[in-house]
Amino acid sequence: MKALLIVAHGSRREASNEEVRALGEAVAALPDNAYDRVACAFLELAEPSIPDGLLQFIEAGATEITVAPYFLSAGRHVSEDIPAEVDKVRMKHPRVRIELAPYLGASDAMPALLLAQGQR
Amino acid sequence: MKALLIVAHGSRREASNEEVRALGEAVAALPDNAYDRVACAFLELAEPSIPDGLLQFIEAGATEITVAPYFLSAGRHVSEDIPAEVDKVRMKHPRVRIELAPYLGASDAMPALLLAQGQR
Repeated sequence: MKALLIVAHGSRREASNEEVRALGEAVAALPDNAYDRVACAFLELAEPSIPDGLLQFIEAGATEITVAPYFLSAGRHVSEDIPAEVDKVRMKHPRVRIELAPYLGASDAMPALLLAQGQR
Repeated sequence: MKALLIVAHGSRREASNEEVRALGEAVAALPDNAYDRVACAFLELAEPSIPDGLLQFIEAGATEITVAPYFLSAGRHVSEDIPAEVDKVRMKHPRVRIELAPYLGASDAMPALLLAQGQR
């Protein structure tokens, strides 16, 4: 069973967290979505945490999990904090394959998305 | 003359600011880019500021400027701080049309981009 965990920073502003959850639902609903489950988790300030999000997938039977950081730049959160949270679960569940996808800002499609946004 | 100003938050980590500048160059180089100029500006912590970025365009002859917020959520920066910076220049240059594009996280194409990122 394959699952995708979208990881955002988390905000004190609950509407921002809700925006991420709605995005997760939109990803799950895409016709070419090959994941059995899609959910969101937050590095801080919102629930679920990254370990909790991963554990929910594992309890549901996930064998392969992709963690996709919803971050625009490769700062400490992306390079250290998110991997450290993922490692907590990897150590306890070595049979589950958990992979970190590149952070969003690194997407090759980002320039085109930004240009399209300017033209809206 | 039409110009696009990509506005990011700005970071103490100079590599993150450089990432935004490289993104601006990638947008400028897109074959379907209809802007005569594309540049970046920062809300804080990096240069140029939003007013300075706008003024550089105006000095170069821009008559229409689109400001595209490189932000994932619609927090105070997007709803208040960026518009306030833009207004400073609008008041001094009422003949230049300056429009605010929707912030990046609001893009209809975001779910597909995130899904593609998970599949990389």
